[in-house]
Amino acid sequence: MDEERVENGEGEGKKESKGEERSVEEIFESQEVPSWRNQLTVRAFVVSFVLSIMFSFIVMKLNLTTGIIPSLNVSAGLLGFFFVKTWTKMLQKSALLKQPFTRQENTVIQTCVVASSGIAFSGGFGSYLFGMSERIAKQSEDNGDGFKNPSLGWIIGFLFVVSFLGLFSVLPLRKIMVIDFKLTYPSGTATAHLINSFHTPQGAKLAKKQVKALGKFFSFSFLWGFFQWFFTAGDDCGFVNFPTFGIKAYKNKFYFDFSATYVGVGMICPYIINISVLLGGILSWGLMWPLIEERKGDWYPAGLPASNMHGLQGYKVFIAIAMILGDGLYNFFKVFSRTLTGLFRQVRGNQALPVANQPVTPDVSKRLSYDDQRRTQIFLKDQIPMWFSVAGYVAIAVISTILLPHLFRDLKWYHILVIYIFAPILAFCNAYGCGLTDWSLASTYGKLAIFTIGAWVGSQGGVLAGLAACGVMMNIVSTASDLMQDFKTGYLTLASPRSMFISQVIGTTMGCIISPCVFWLFFKAFDDFGMPDSQYPAPFAVVYRNMAILGVQGFSALPKNCLSLCYGFFAAAILINFSKDMMGKKWGSLVPLPMAMAIPFYIGPYFAIDMCIGSLILFIWEKLNKTKADAFAPAVASGLICGDGIWTLPSSILALAGVKPPICMKFLSRATNAKVDTFLRS
Amino acid sequence: MDEERVENGEGEGKKESKGEERSVEEIFESQEVPSWRNQLTVRAFVVSFVLSIMFSFIVMKLNLTTGIIPSLNVSAGLLGFFFVKTWTKMLQKSALLKQPFTRQENTVIQTCVVASSGIAFSGGFGSYLFGMSERIAKQSEDNGDGFKNPSLGWIIGFLFVVSFLGLFSVLPLRKIMVIDFKLTYPSGTATAHLINSFHTPQGAKLAKKQVKALGKFFSFSFLWGFFQWFFTAGDDCGFVNFPTFGIKAYKNKFYFDFSATYVGVGMICPYIINISVLLGGILSWGLMWPLIEERKGDWYPAGLPASNMHGLQGYKVFIAIAMILGDGLYNFFKVFSRTLTGLFRQVRGNQALPVANQPVTPDVSKRLSYDDQRRTQIFLKDQIPMWFSVAGYVAIAVISTILLPHLFRDLKWYHILVIYIFAPILAFCNAYGCGLTDWSLASTYGKLAIFTIGAWVGSQGGVLAGLAACGVMMNIVSTASDLMQDFKTGYLTLASPRSMFISQVIGTTMGCIISPCVFWLFFKAFDDFGMPDSQYPAPFAVVYRNMAILGVQGFSALPKNCLSLCYGFFAAAILINFSKDMMGKKWGSLVPLPMAMAIPFYIGPYFAIDMCIGSLILFIWEKLNKTKADAFAPAVASGLICGDGIWTLPSSILALAGVKPPICMKFLSRATNAKVDTFLRS
Repeated sequence: MDEERVENGEGEGKKESKGEERSVEEIFESQEVPSWRNQLTVRAFVVSFVLSIMFSFIVMKLNLTTGIIPSLNVSAGLLGFFFVKTWTKMLQKSALLKQPFTRQENTVIQTCVVASSGIAFSGGFGSYLFGMSERIAKQSEDNGDGFKNPSLGWIIGFLFVVSFLGLFSVLPLRKIMVIDFKLTYPSGTATAHLINSFHTPQGAKLAKKQVKALGKFFSFSFLWGFFQWFFTAGDDCGFVNFPTFGIKAYKNKFYFDFSATYVGVGMICPYIINISVLLGGILSWGLMWPLIEERKGDWYPAGLPASNMHGLQGYKVFIAIAMILGDGLYNFFKVFSRTLTGLFRQVRGNQALPVANQPVTPDVSKRLSYDDQRRTQIFLKDQIPMWFSVAGYVAIAVISTILLPHLFRDLKWYHILVIYIFAPILAFCNAYGCGLTDWSLASTYGKLAIFTIGAWVGSQGGVLAGLAACGVMMNIVSTASDLMQDFKTGYLTLASPRSMFISQVIGTTMGCIISPCVFWLFFKAFDDFGMPDSQYPAPFAVVYRNMAILGVQGFSALPKNCLSLCYGFFAAAILINFSKDMMGKKWGSLVPLPMAMAIPFYIGPYFAIDMCIGSLILFIWEKLNKTKADAFAPAVASGLICGDGIWTLPSSILALAGVKPPICMKFLSRATNAKVDTFLRS
Repeated sequence: MDEERVENGEGEGKKESKGEERSVEEIFESQEVPSWRNQLTVRAFVVSFVLSIMFSFIVMKLNLTTGIIPSLNVSAGLLGFFFVKTWTKMLQKSALLKQPFTRQENTVIQTCVVASSGIAFSGGFGSYLFGMSERIAKQSEDNGDGFKNPSLGWIIGFLFVVSFLGLFSVLPLRKIMVIDFKLTYPSGTATAHLINSFHTPQGAKLAKKQVKALGKFFSFSFLWGFFQWFFTAGDDCGFVNFPTFGIKAYKNKFYFDFSATYVGVGMICPYIINISVLLGGILSWGLMWPLIEERKGDWYPAGLPASNMHGLQGYKVFIAIAMILGDGLYNFFKVFSRTLTGLFRQVRGNQALPVANQPVTPDVSKRLSYDDQRRTQIFLKDQIPMWFSVAGYVAIAVISTILLPHLFRDLKWYHILVIYIFAPILAFCNAYGCGLTDWSLASTYGKLAIFTIGAWVGSQGGVLAGLAACGVMMNIVSTASDLMQDFKTGYLTLASPRSMFISQVIGTTMGCIISPCVFWLFFKAFDDFGMPDSQYPAPFAVVYRNMAILGVQGFSALPKNCLSLCYGFFAAAILINFSKDMMGKKWGSLVPLPMAMAIPFYIGPYFAIDMCIGSLILFIWEKLNKTKADAFAPAVASGLICGDGIWTLPSSILALAGVKPPICMKFLSRATNAKVDTFLRS
């Protein structure tokens, strides 16, 4: 997990205990596995394209509102199944169906969609990329460092140049990771189980019910978004500004904003994340900011505009950065050390005893089960030659090294070369760590690049160079772990590595075009895009830019006592993480996560309230009917997230077309209301 | 059913088919029936008192908002069970329980609560009694007829003087009605079945679940009312003014006002009533009023205030009256003729063949079943002597004849005497008709009194005298049918007629004090009480007053074409009713009810939308799970109604104490909002 992408495999990994009498592959034995070419159907990519657009909207919206993105693998699997199943059913009726819908095809769709919508995250539209823009530069501490405003052309070019490297960098390692190391990849495993359960005859019944629940909540959430739109004629209008707990609480950003998305996100995220976010919100907006604001005129000059980094805003942003960095650093070292020790044991174990190659998973049976045999056989059937990976990596690296300095003039070719030499190692680290813990640390590696390249380039253009380097690094590292995750899914569903790889390439290509377009739609449709109190504040953009500035210029310009507070929270983040690990699983799981706590520091706790409501719903549901909640909660949550997410498409089109909502639902205090009434009557 | 009280026994009468192997009384055989004195416990009346206050609030609120009051018998039974059961459970634990909770005691509570809250309806706080006030006089066509403002003293006195007569008038007929005629009394029967099912060992489990559902929705509805309160700082603020379908629809009163009460009412009322109300709303506010408004300056003078009876308001009120009268008249003659033919057959049948005394119910088995035997035996055990009824009636009639002319100086003693001579006959008619059809025509008899006494007294004070006569008549007729309904319940639960009667007397006494106090609270707490567009418009008050004026003065002052429209709608009401009866049960049940259609004519269709949403919820629920919906829908609906109803208690106390809500949720059009924003910024 990192601050922008919250993966949650734990809750779904439980579904493994199924089919007691016959193993999964024994049940599927009668079904022929199609050749890798037949797994790649046209219909799969049509469906993937549609879903990619949808998920890009969702991820983009999440990027730009709070930056918390739950794992959408399950939704992708569900919806992919739903679309193709409907399609094949229709064709079956008209007797035109040539090829039945297989689980391999379903995996191809899921892979393609995840790859494509992954770009919406790793493209940095809510972080480094938009952090380069003039609008964010104006909000940040020092705006003498230049800016590069987003434009459709260079963004697409940039993404094409950097997004494919990750795929080639870890491609040769797939056998080592999946078969030899037997890494778990919780999200990938969960998705594979879901897809398998869809395609077993009994499973399809549950799947249909799940799809129905998803569809119901999808429509509800979409219609709710539509309904809300009518009441947002002005700036502070509509349900998003509902002062649920009173006007004073609203001013401190404590309110329920009726967002179906975040209620859904709250249902998917583990309880501890929701509680952490709420705790962080209470600590910051309920306690610290009001206290710091009382020191106005002493700690920082009074009369500054709200968004000025030398005022209260500075405390908000830099304390959040300190906490995020502390958490990131701790987890980096933790995962890195586990990677090293894991590798060390693996290598030693392999040399000593060839069969005992499962140091991480608790499965100690020496013989390979039927499932494992069959899966291994299929996985190894379609080879991808080593020279292909190497040639691909080198070719793209060369092109990229030549082209990137033209896009960012402060980023020299040797900077890029250094990144590309170290990138495969980091990509491997991330893919391995993700396999162990399900946490992708892509953005932490990105931050590493910001600081190192930023400091290297120095005060002349270091900020932009740092942000660009962050993008290069994040894309490689993030796609590498995604690919390996998908290989694991493919391994468990008997999909060929070749079709997985091609699906990833096609998905990445789609993502490189769809994501910038979706971003562009948002950017053009909403006038106050990226401003702190707007509908789309893109909170991490300013955080990333300020990190870059910090890397280049040091701590000189921070307001009074801000640095000491930052040190405190940096230390606290490490300490909390350390005590979490020390306390063991039972008590440690009750300790809040510093990363999650830091998110509301900057944007306010309102979304934490949505998420906690989602948690509460899930909690009550689990109390009432655990089995049903486990089976349907992910579907309901996905429905809520997808419906609201897809509503942003028509909503931004309406905004572009200049259609404005007719009514303003306004919230006024009694005194103001009396004044307004007198004004309206006169 | 009449326009103010919608009884719905049909839906609940179905529960009869239970206990196939053993009959109900065989199951209960082991339980001893307590003596009638022991049925009347102190705890029963304490619980009755608490519930009476609650139900008075609910009925009063319904009276004053739309005038549609669903049958609350089931809720009274449920809540009575719940309270006493909790109480006895607590006592049982502390080993202080002296007397177990029996179904007879439950019936006593139910009877007492229904009698008490019945006064809140027949007391005319939303119709004739408030129609005498100055505020309504000012809104009516001609305000030279004097007024009598409500005051706690004379209202309590008036109610005490007129409310007990009905009880004595039909008391001697209980054996004839319940045992000899075997009238069905659907509501009474349904309540009895409910109470029986609560007290059988298997039944209590369902009852507990029902009570739990009721409790859940009660709390939800109460909290929702509380939550809404915070946002109603001004006149057009809050959820009650939510322009769900846009501002233009809102101006024509088409909107969902988020009232839990009317959603619950919609769930209890049969579908056809909800559809009728919606149809009436569309016909009037969607079509007729906008069309008539276009004739402004031609049909009626332009520039009149909205509430002037010579303008659009006149059309609204008088067309509604015409339709209500047409429907009432048709039903009066229908029920009256059925009463006469029923009686005729009964008397002839009795003379010819003493055993065949069941002409109405289809049960033709000559032998009495065990249940009937036992019930008849218990019912006849405790006699109430004839002289007691006659003496009681005469004594109260004399007191009332002396006292009433002091309260209303235009109502002379001979008017009252005439009413009291005819009243027992009409009371019998109503009790008999209600037993056949479950429709109490109390307010139709009341209207009869308005016209006859009003015309008799003439233009000098005829309006007030007519309204007062209406009150005298309604109270007698309504309590008579309530009593007989309760006798039926008592018969089916083996409760003694004596305890039923005493419970009715105590309940009526409570009602005579509680209802005026509750009304007084509303009257004092809300400044704009009784005004057309306020929260509590008391729509029938102005309707009743205008009927009285019509009776006294004729049709002279109506605006242009209003009279012809009235004739048309009067005829349409009769015609619709007639065709409804002609078409047979299958198709006839699809024809809307004119009475229900007329209600939104005056107050607008917004509550129809609430009710239709209630219907829709019930409809979907029945589609999904018919058994569950049948078992729990009444409980859920009661919970919604009771929770919202009881919230009016703290809300009116807050209003009295001068505590005002802090926030206004305002709805402005985009243009107005822009203006307001500029104003607020300056």
